[in-house]
Formats: sequence, structure tokens, C-alpha cells
Amino acid sequence: MRKINKVVLAFSGGLDTSVILKWLQDTYQCEVVTFTADIGQGEEVEPARAKAQQLGIKEIYIDDLREEFVRDFVFPMFRANAIYEGEYLLGTSIARPLIAKRQIEIAKETGADAVSHGATGKGNDQVRFELGYYALQPSIHVIAPWREWELTSREKLMRYAEQHNIPVEMKKKIGSPYSMDANLLHISYEGRSLEDPAVEPEESMWRWSVSPERAPDEAEYLEIEFKRGDMVALNGNRMTPAEALTTLNQLGGKHGIGRLDLVENRYVGMKSRGCYETPGGTILLRAHRAIESITLDREVAHLKDELMPRYAALIYNGYWWSPERKVMQTMIDATQNSVNGWVRVKLYKGNVIVVGRDSATDSLFDEKVATFEDDAGTYDQADALGFIKLNALRLRIAANMIRK
Amino acid sequence: MRKINKVVLAFSGGLDTSVILKWLQDTYQCEVVTFTADIGQGEEVEPARAKAQQLGIKEIYIDDLREEFVRDFVFPMFRANAIYEGEYLLGTSIARPLIAKRQIEIAKETGADAVSHGATGKGNDQVRFELGYYALQPSIHVIAPWREWELTSREKLMRYAEQHNIPVEMKKKIGSPYSMDANLLHISYEGRSLEDPAVEPEESMWRWSVSPERAPDEAEYLEIEFKRGDMVALNGNRMTPAEALTTLNQLGGKHGIGRLDLVENRYVGMKSRGCYETPGGTILLRAHRAIESITLDREVAHLKDELMPRYAALIYNGYWWSPERKVMQTMIDATQNSVNGWVRVKLYKGNVIVVGRDSATDSLFDEKVATFEDDAGTYDQADALGFIKLNALRLRIAANMIRK
Amino acid sequence: MRKINKVVLAFSGGLDTSVILKWLQDTYQCEVVTFTADIGQGEEVEPARAKAQQLGIKEIYIDDLREEFVRDFVFPMFRANAIYEGEYLLGTSIARPLIAKRQIEIAKETGADAVSHGATGKGNDQVRFELGYYALQPSIHVIAPWREWELTSREKLMRYAEQHNIPVEMKKKIGSPYSMDANLLHISYEGRSLEDPAVEPEESMWRWSVSPERAPDEAEYLEIEFKRGDMVALNGNRMTPAEALTTLNQLGGKHGIGRLDLVENRYVGMKSRGCYETPGGTILLRAHRAIESITLDREVAHLKDELMPRYAALIYNGYWWSPERKVMQTMIDATQNSVNGWVRVKLYKGNVIVVGRDSATDSLFDEKVATFEDDAGTYDQADALGFIKLNALRLRIAANMIRK
Amino acid sequence: MRKINKVVLAFSGGLDTSVILKWLQDTYQCEVVTFTADIGQGEEVEPARAKAQQLGIKEIYIDDLREEFVRDFVFPMFRANAIYEGEYLLGTSIARPLIAKRQIEIAKETGADAVSHGATGKGNDQVRFELGYYALQPSIHVIAPWREWELTSREKLMRYAEQHNIPVEMKKKIGSPYSMDANLLHISYEGRSLEDPAVEPEESMWRWSVSPERAPDEAEYLEIEFKRGDMVALNGNRMTPAEALTTLNQLGGKHGIGRLDLVENRYVGMKSRGCYETPGGTILLRAHRAIESITLDREVAHLKDELMPRYAALIYNGYWWSPERKVMQTMIDATQNSVNGWVRVKLYKGNVIVVGRDSATDSLFDEKVATFEDDAGTYDQADALGFIKLNALRLRIAANMIRK
Repeated sequence: MRKINKVVLAFSGGLDTSVILKWLQDTYQCEVVTFTADIGQGEEVEPARAKAQQLGIKEIYIDDLREEFVRDFVFPMFRANAIYEGEYLLGTSIARPLIAKRQIEIAKETGADAVSHGATGKGNDQVRFELGYYALQPSIHVIAPWREWELTSREKLMRYAEQHNIPVEMKKKIGSPYSMDANLLHISYEGRSLEDPAVEPEESMWRWSVSPERAPDEAEYLEIEFKRGDMVALNGNRMTPAEALTTLNQLGGKHGIGRLDLVENRYVGMKSRGCYETPGGTILLRAHRAIESITLDREVAHLKDELMPRYAALIYNGYWWSPERKVMQTMIDATQNSVNGWVRVKLYKGNVIVVGRDSATDSLFDEKVATFEDDAGTYDQADALGFIKLNALRLRIAANMIRK
Repeated sequence: MRKINKVVLAFSGGLDTSVILKWLQDTYQCEVVTFTADIGQGEEVEPARAKAQQLGIKEIYIDDLREEFVRDFVFPMFRANAIYEGEYLLGTSIARPLIAKRQIEIAKETGADAVSHGATGKGNDQVRFELGYYALQPSIHVIAPWREWELTSREKLMRYAEQHNIPVEMKKKIGSPYSMDANLLHISYEGRSLEDPAVEPEESMWRWSVSPERAPDEAEYLEIEFKRGDMVALNGNRMTPAEALTTLNQLGGKHGIGRLDLVENRYVGMKSRGCYETPGGTILLRAHRAIESITLDREVAHLKDELMPRYAALIYNGYWWSPERKVMQTMIDATQNSVNGWVRVKLYKGNVIVVGRDSATDSLFDEKVATFEDDAGTYDQADALGFIKLNALRLRIAANMIRK
Repeated sequence: MRKINKVVLAFSGGLDTSVILKWLQDTYQCEVVTFTADIGQGEEVEPARAKAQQLGIKEIYIDDLREEFVRDFVFPMFRANAIYEGEYLLGTSIARPLIAKRQIEIAKETGADAVSHGATGKGNDQVRFELGYYALQPSIHVIAPWREWELTSREKLMRYAEQHNIPVEMKKKIGSPYSMDANLLHISYEGRSLEDPAVEPEESMWRWSVSPERAPDEAEYLEIEFKRGDMVALNGNRMTPAEALTTLNQLGGKHGIGRLDLVENRYVGMKSRGCYETPGGTILLRAHRAIESITLDREVAHLKDELMPRYAALIYNGYWWSPERKVMQTMIDATQNSVNGWVRVKLYKGNVIVVGRDSATDSLFDEKVATFEDDAGTYDQADALGFIKLNALRLRIAANMIRK
Repeated sequence: MRKINKVVLAFSGGLDTSVILKWLQDTYQCEVVTFTADIGQGEEVEPARAKAQQLGIKEIYIDDLREEFVRDFVFPMFRANAIYEGEYLLGTSIARPLIAKRQIEIAKETGADAVSHGATGKGNDQVRFELGYYALQPSIHVIAPWREWELTSREKLMRYAEQHNIPVEMKKKIGSPYSMDANLLHISYEGRSLEDPAVEPEESMWRWSVSPERAPDEAEYLEIEFKRGDMVALNGNRMTPAEALTTLNQLGGKHGIGRLDLVENRYVGMKSRGCYETPGGTILLRAHRAIESITLDREVAHLKDELMPRYAALIYNGYWWSPERKVMQTMIDATQNSVNGWVRVKLYKGNVIVVGRDSATDSLFDEKVATFEDDAGTYDQADALGFIKLNALRLRIAANMIRK
């Protein structure tokens, strides 16, 4: 076993990472620095301080990263309209690179030679954390307890906690029927009761949104304003990135928007079933596509659409910090210079319905050309003849040649 | 003006194509063959016979193409999960190649040297018709009256109709506030009142679906069965392709599903606003993605997703009969061999919610591997270490090199 | 016919554009501004002044655009390793956007309301010129004489020239067996004697390079230095872009490098046979790929390779000034930040052989990791096991499932 | 250590695999089945039998797989014009899937529960072998001695050989300055003296081709005939796939064709320098592109070009037996139905020059349309106006909008 001096642990304050903390101390006989971030998971982060102190930690980092998370990670991703496998809005995937970045910064500040996380050996998150670590600090040592230790079942973990006086809340003893993860973009549910993809999840699972059935009977209209592809205001009120997403989450949740139940392909090779609530993101994505529909050139939009699945897979697989994601981002960002304007959406019982869009400065919608009425010579219908004839030429030559 | 002997006209029996019929007779002094197809537009086709006879037509073709339309055009397209510009299900686009094919067949049967259609010079449909004609019969002559004649406004058209004793229904006199097109896959609305994309369409416009607000308060569950990527049964009842889509349309329409309001990029170069109702197709697409999610290999699914926008654009632009669409179809069809199984969806006030999916013969979902619980050695978590280390290698080398 | 006040003509001073000049004056009764550019075609541009004056032109523009051509057009394109249809280095395509840009600038300076060029109605160049014009000045009027006039054969053109006292050189009377076009990147041959793609072109056709058979028996080594993807020095001598390409052309031509004989697909729909000499460009492309091979990340390089054919087609088809080319360029340029270093190539009788490459600042080649010898722990071979196992997982699950 | 009963070893008869054989027997105490294939590496395979017998092997498989190799692996790959990273013709990559397939077949025949190969833990070949094994037999156990044993240096290996009476040829004692691999498509050189990519390899390294300098002073012309994309005859003589490639290798080698020196990106994450001789393949690739140039539709050709890098990477990375490679092959093969005809190439001192191509049955080259001379109305130049105007429409609208 490698000699470690100091390790920076991504520490939630919950049972699992408390056990990991203790296990790191015992196993590596090293100092542990804890790092707890508020990325909008909806739980207090300050209690983590007391828990860390209780376990003898001297260097404790607690950061509010909500604005950075939305501004530098969520929004850039939404500029690409990124969706993984046609459905998933990448809520978990996009948070990991930020955690990894901050852990490495703290490792540098504190002179730590290792970092550690609580992701299991079967999932995508280990990959996302560790690719980030290595890209940002190639010589860092990574400790992934779930791949190393013997605590391979819930019971063993509990026993370890008890033996080491780690307080276990009652609900943890029972065990959640799902593995959950939350941040400002979404909450996810995986595993346990969800493992049969033929069976519908129980209504009680969902936490961030009401069911469409329970949503208000009155629709609600929003006007979302975009600047360079990013949401900047709601119904005329300017908002910071985190404020904007927080507000959309509340509104979306209220109207039963953004639930998703799917089978996805993990990077480590197997299919898994996941359920997600992404209320604000679901609204944002529709609205972003709508503002692009009048402000983006056709071929630019098509280029984006063709590259999107690859970009989304990069994020899903953990390559946020890779050079290929960065150069793609350069292009995506360049496309957003003209993505300015507003979109009106109607929220109603699970539906996000785009009902209007306009751009005072960058609309490429030209009513005079588009009209089927008399356009006073803006467009010469005779041009269509040549357009069709030359586009058909190769097809005609082929048909002719075959005939001979 | 070229000498034409006989022209096959795509004839709906409505005002526009009746005027075209007369205009062709007058202008080209040629025989006209009419062709009227039932592709599920929801209007009787037989009345077209009387109208054609009244105008002196001797060769009248009236075909029920509904099964062919769904089996050979709609279903192959849905195997690709084709969506244009992230939203549009290509309802109009996919019907044109079939009309074009049948017109050319009739031209061959009747010895006609020309074909004609009623699409305008500003839209996509002229391109879709004519690329089909040329690909299937390169020496055919195409007459596109809207690009040739002087009847460039509604009033002139009406006057021409009156002058030539073409009966004009009352409602036509008033003029519809939209230009509409329907077939078994969808109904579309364009133009006139819709020309300002900032303004929401009136509720009265929609014809095939109720609004989500008016949809039943009770959800309805469907079980859709797929064979080689095509829907073959609903709730245990085998159905032909056209039966399946017809039934899904009824169910979707009842539950307020499949409305769409968007700004799209036409192939001829401008943006236009279109509204669509695709109730059955919207259900089918979600269900098809869901059955693929457990039966398609990850990389095959990603390959499909990356090529989909290009395939969709080919269909949108009118290249159904092109060699590139055909070879892509070969690949798409090959991916569907394993796409067998069933999907359960819940319909509720505009929502299509996938709640279960399974395949007795082709599921790639392996519960034993996917579980976060003890998997009895099916998956060795230690493998993840090497996987991550080698995937990170290039990132680490780069970070190291830069450092130096 | 539209009323034109003043037209800017791309004027070479040769027979064709002299006839066009006269024809424009006669047909449109408008003022003509001539524009003649030195883009390295290897012919004096000053004689064009006298010819224009002789034809009564008052506003004569003669520009040396060689540096701008290579710096702002050729080099950016080479950053992408652009090749059309696997073979063609886009020599003609890349010059047209510059000519178009300068014509529009001159139109603005001189208050002209039209531009004109001498490209025929069957080729790609008309598209390249005109897409440029329209993108840069959407209201400009374009006059394409070859698509308008009656001078549809060589003889008619000659007769017109004689009738209007346009001097015709002897060799023009005979007529070249090829249509040629040259600039600093290449010279092209098309048409006439080349129209049968089964027949080898005559040795006498080639103008810029000796045949490999006549090239020196001694190889010559070059060391080419790159900075941000652009060539900046040869054998240690700093050079401007145009100097660099001029020198490579001389060296390549001397060693029989860069001849190409192919059948290509024109944008207007037919196949055509073209022959090209691109001596310097051929060397540059090989060298650029070689410097990228040690300085670009793998996935960035693969992304570039996958997008290259599309980027090349954009340039071939005339979309240099389109938004999609520009955003792609943003990404391509971003990849070149690390493309610094030198490449050694050996020129010998038609061959460009890369024999060495290195980068003092940006090499990603890590000898310690690459070695098959003992690497002192830099790379843990055991990692490969996990890497393979997880990459194989989906294949194994599939094989298992099928078996069942 | 897992209990193994019987292992099928890919056995060349050389020092390395002889040591592996012995080591397998000793370490696993299991039976070993040897498998030796003639895939055109140019060495006798029969001597492997005696060596295996000497080491006590009872089940010895020696197969001539040359025809299968070229017919089912090399030719399908060449239909795609596959090149990795712009240069490498994938000679090693394409042989591994065949070896893997045959090993698994033999394992099934002989009831073996394991397979083994002699590839190191740093290279691509381990991945290619093992992905093949797992895809074809998911429960197989794989033994990769280079990743397991202690014989991590040349000296240790030698000592082990001596200790176990494995005969070591003199030249092996000295050690080759390169690691080599050969089959009917190519011979490769890696490692040791080549590890500095700045330094030119020694002339003495190359084995299959003379240098361009030493090649004949007389050019040689070949006429290559293709059927459905595969070479079927040379200069009028029908040949089997292996005969064809063997003959092209001789001719290419004689004329100094097909040498390559490059830095490539390995799948396991590092850059490595490799040198290759692919004389026949280099000729075949140029000729195949040339026959495609007159028989493939433009858009089909472009689609192939855009997918090619991905297809090539699949083969390079070892995914021959993956579903994504198979469905892509379906499409590629479908494109080749029309790829029939002949190509004439000239071989001269390292150059492969295409000088003619034709297809009696499938040429899409239409001289009447392509000509710049009078084409008697086949092509209407006026069509180009509309073609350009509509293609420019979005550019004009954008330029107009910006102006406002």
C-alpha cells in the first residue's frame, strides 16, 4: 500500500463518506482534509463541519459553489442542447467535474498528495471524478474506497460505523430504497427497487416535482430571456445563473415537469435504469432550442445537432476537462453570440409548451420571405426551378446511366 | 413552352388542384390524368372522381395507399428515431416520396410525359415531389403551376375558378386562416395567421387533438409491442401498420398528445413557422426509443443518434429516393434485428410517460451486472481502476508535458 | 433587364474577361470598374491596366493579395488538413472567397451596384463567387455573362472580340487544350482534352512541376517549422506566408511533387475530371499532419479528422463566408495552439517522405511511456486488464444474452 | 490463480511464444493447444509443428488462412477506404480479429477453457485479441503472460528459455533492433531504435520494399479490375483475393511503394512511433478510391468519407467483432454494389499514379453534361442562377438582418 500523507475527501457529512473518512484515517494513517460543497443539493452543508470536527479533522472546506456550478458548467452545457441517449439531461454528470476541480485546488492549497471520493466501482461517477483529478493534477494519487475495502455490503458498512462510533441516523438504518444524488440541476434515483426496468417506479419516490395529476389545473406562462445562449431573466426580472435555475426548478416542480424514467448505457459497459427529476433544466432546454430556432443559421444549427450526441457522451463519460470537450465548447460558444431574445413557454401538468419567441436584435425570421402571400418580389419563385434541377442532377444522371 | 401530351396530376379534388387541372388543359392543351390517394388525410377520396369527370378527365386513379405509406415510409423512418431540428416528426416530408413514386408509375402506365403537383414555389414540398420524380424517371417533364402561372394571389385564383365554372365551396371563399396538410402521420398548419412566431396560435386551429386541459382526467396505459423495430401490436392485439398508427392517433388525440409549434429552416433557405399535430407518432417515437434502450448496443445506439439529424434532414429536404438515404436505411434496418419486445406508456394530458419496457428475446439489460448490491462476482470492481487509468493516460501525459 | 449603374468586374486582362468587359458596357450601358489581383497566378497583373484603359475604364484596381491569400485563406484551411474527396487540395476553391470579398469592398468604395465574374454556368466557381458576394453584400446585383449571353461557343466569342477590336493573342486563337486556373496554391487543368477520364493526360500539359522521372536523382531534405499550425520557417529561415508557399512550390515542382489527376463531384451536380499541380501544398499538408501527430491530443485529432470532409466540402462548395465555416474555424484554430515544432521531410521524385518531427514545447510523445522496454513504473501493464475487461463488458453481456 | 484445464495459444514457433508455452504449462499446470496460422507473414508455419511437439504438445493446429484473411477482413476494410489518423493502413489491426476468431473456434473444438496470446501490456494488440475473444465467447478465460509474469526484460526471458531448454536462435540472442509484425497486408516495425520520432529510421530496416532510389527507372502500368468494390483481376488475369494482394505486394515492393513512418495514438493512451510497409495495400487504396470516383454517387461518397475515420478507429481499437462495426459494414457493403470497373495506375519510384478509370456498367461520369463545350441542351446553365440564389438565401437574410 502506497504511503499517503494527506488526502482531500469529497465529504457530504452522510454515513457513507463518514465511514470513508474513518477508513482513510485507519487504513492510510494519513491526515484527511474534508471538502463539502453546496451545489444546490438542497441539504444544509454546515452540519458537515461539526461531523468532520468530531472525527478529528483540522482542515475543513465548505464552499457554496452554486453560482459557479450553473454559470461555468450547466449553462455552457445547455448551450449545446446536450442530451445523452435522446433523454437524459446529464444532471449528475455535469456536477462531478466541478467537485474534482475544487478537490485538486484544495489538494494544492493544503499540500495533499491524494484525493478520495465515495463513488462505487460500478458506476460512472468514479470515472468522472478521477478523469478530472488526473487531467488537472496528473501525479495525484486517487483513493476509491469502494474499490478497495472489504465493506462490500450495507450490513458490513453499518457494522463498521457502529464499531467506530459513527452516528447512523435512523432512516439510514432502514436504508433508502434508492440511491440518490442531487444538485441544482436535478435529483436522480438508481438501484434497488428500480432494478427491474419493466416495473413503474412508485409515486412516492419522486421528491422534487408533483405528479402531472397533482399539478395545478391552471397553466402558467413564463417569459425567459436569453443573452448569448444563457438565461438572464424571467418575466422581466434579471437573475444570476443559480437564481434562474432555482426559480425554474420551483416552477417546473410545481407543474409536474421534468420527470424521466429510462434505461441508459453506462460508460463502464452495462445498462442501468435511472429515474431523474430535472424540472428547471427541462424548461430551459425547450426554451433554449426555441430561441435558437429564430436566431441560429440553419447549417450552424444542424452542425450543432450532429455534434451534440458526441458532446453529451463526453460529459456523461467524464471528459469535461479533456481537450476535445474544450475545443468543441469553443465552437459551441461561438454559435451563441447571436442567441439573444426571449421565449414564452406555458407550463401545464407536465408539459412545457413553447408558444412564442422573438429576438429584437438577432432574429433571422423574415416574415416577408416566409409568407405564402404575395411577397412583393423578395423571393423569386422561379429560382426554385434551378435549385431543384441542379440538386436533382446527380439523381437523374444515375437513373439515366442505370437505364442504359 | 414545351409540348406536353399527357400529364399526371396529383389531384385532391379541392379548389387549388381543380384550378390547376383546368389550367393545365388550357395552357398545355394536353390530356390530364388525375391521381388521388388516400394516405390517411381523413377526407373521402371518392368525391375526387366525380370532380375529375366533371372536368372531362378520362383516366382517373384513386388509390388507398395507407398501408403502404405506414409500412414502407413511416415505419422505416421511425426505425431511425428521425426528428428534424430537434422537434419536427417529418409528417409532411415522409408522404411526398410515396405520392411522387405513384405518379411516376401512373405516368409509365398511361404513357404520360409529364407530372404536375400543387405545391408552391416557396416551400419544401415542390422539392420533395420533384426530386422524387427525377430520381425515378429522369426524363420526365415537371409542371409546377405555382411557379409558372399568373394566379399569384387568392383573389386571382378565385376569379379564374369562377371564370371556368369550377365550383368553390363557401368556406374556400372565406379562405382558411392556415395552409393545412394531413396524412396518417400528422396534420400541419402553416402561413397566414401563424406568420408571427411571437404569437401563440389560437386553440381553435388544432383539429386532431384536444388540448391537454380538455384531455381526460384519467391516465391511460398502453402496451406497445415491437418486432424488428416496428410496432406490431397494441395491448396484445396484432395490428397492421396503418391500423396501429390510426389507433395511436385516436388515443393520442384523445389525451392531448403530439402538438408542436415551432420555427423551422426550410430547404429553400428561409425560416418558417409551422404547427403540427402528430399524436400517434409522438407516442410511437417515445416507445421506440424505450424498446431500443434495452435491446440496442450502446455504440450502435450512439451511432444512430449521431447520424439521425443527417438522415432526418435528407427526408425533410426530399432525398428519400437518393442513394445516400437508401444506404443509410440499410444500416438502420440492420440495427433493428434485435429491437423486439414491449413498452408500456402512460398517456395523460399531453404527456407520454414510459413506465416499463422488456424484451423476452433481446434484452441487454443484465440485472446481475447492473446492481449496486453484491453481484456475486459478475463484475470485478477492480477492473474500473485500469479502465480509468488508461482512459486518463493521454490527459495525464498532456498535463505532465505542459508542466515541464 | 435590370438597370445597372456601375459594375465591378473581376478582370484578368485576358480574352474572356476583355470580352465580358465590352459586353457589360454594351449590354448594360453601365460603367465598369476593373479589379485585377495578384494571387500568385504567375502572370504579370500590370498589363491589365493598359488593357482596361484601352477599353475606356476609369476606375482600375490592381492589388497584390498574395500575403493575404496565404495568411487568411490558405493557412487557415491547412490547419484543418482539408482535402476534398480524399485527394483534392482545394486550390481553386480557396481563392474565390478572397476575390469575392475584394470585389464587394471595391463596390462599396466606388458606389457600384453590381459585380461580375467570368465563370461559366456549369462549374463550381460561379457558386463560390456569388455565395461570397451575397453573404458580404446581400443586395448586390450579380451579372454572370456566361449564363446570360449568346456567346456560347469559342467561335462566337472570337467573332465578338474581332467585331469589337479586342486584341486576341495568337495562342488564344488556337485555343488551349485545357481550361486553366492558377494561384499561389495550385494550377488546375480541366475540360477539352481531359474529358475522357479513362485516358492519361499528356506530359506536356503539366506546367508547374517536372515529372518524377525528370526530377533530380538526389533527394533533398527540408526542415519546416510550425507555429500555431502555420508554417513560419524553412531550414531555419523565417518566411512570410506567401514566401513560404512560393518557396515550397519551387522545391516541390523541382522534385516532381504534387500532381493529381482525378474525377471529382461538382456542387452543381455532375462529375468532372480535373488535373492539378499543388507542389507546395502537398509538402505542407504532409508536414502539417506530421507536426500534429506529436502535438495534438488523440481525440482532438480524431474529431478534426471526422469533421474535415465536411469542412472541405464547405470550401469546395463556396461556403467560406458562411456562419458554419466560421464556427468550425473557431474550433480548428483552437486546436492549433499547441501545434508548434518542426518536421523534416525528404523530397524525392514525386515523394514527400516525413523522416522526423519534434516539438520543444508541445510534444505529447512520452518516450518513457511508449517504450516496450522497462519503463520504471511509468505505466502499469496491469491497468490494461481492467481497461479491456470493461470495454469488453457490453460485448460479453450481448454474447451471453444471445446464448440464453 | 484460477484453475485452467486447457488453453489455446496463438503460437508462432518463435522464442517468445515458445517461452509462453512453457510458462503456461508450468504456471497453470494445464494442457496447451497450439495454433499457428499462415496469414502471409512470409515465414514457414510447418516448423512450428516440430517445436510444439518438442514441448510436448498433442493438439497442434496449423492453418493456411491467407484467402480468408484477405477475402473476409482486408477486402471489406478496403471497401471503406479505411485509414487510421490519415496515414496508417491498419495492417496489424486487421489480422488480429481473424486470429481471435480461430482461437475461439479451436477452444470450442478442443474443449479448452482459456486462450492466450503473446502481446504485451502496453500495445493495441492485447486489446484486439481480447475484445475478439470476449465477443465470440464471453465466458472464456484469457491469459496474457506479458501482463502476468515476472519476465519483464529481454534478459529474464532469455534466462528462462535457457533454463527450460528452449532453443534460442543466434539472432534472437542479439535481439532485433525493432519489434516486427507481418501478414499479407503489411510488415510493421516498432520500438527500440525507433523510439525517437525525430530520427529517420535506417534504410536497412525496411524488408518488403526497395527504397524509391533503388526502384526501377522504368515505370510500370497496371490495370486493376474491381467487382463490388473488391479487386478481382490484374492486367486481365483473374485472381483470388490472396493472389491479388500477394501480386500487388511484389509489384509495389519492387517499385518502392508503401513505406510509412509515423507517430500514432494507441488505444491504451500513449503516442508511439511506427514504421510500416504496405506495398500492395497502398496501390489498392488509390485504385479503389479511383474506381469509386466514377461509380459512387457524390453524397454516398461523402457519407463514406465522413464515417471512415470512425470505422478505421473501430478496427484500430479492436472492435471488428462489435455490433457497431458490423452495422457500419452493412452500409459500406451496400455502397459497393456499383463499384465495378477498372483503374489504370502507374508505379514509379514510390509513386502510385492513377492515370485512367472506367466502368462499362456503372460509370456516373456523363461526358455530355460535364463538358464546358456546347452540350446540346443536356444542362441548362440558367438553372445555376436559381440554385445559387436559394443556397444564398439564408446568407442574404442574415446579412440583411444584421444590417438593420
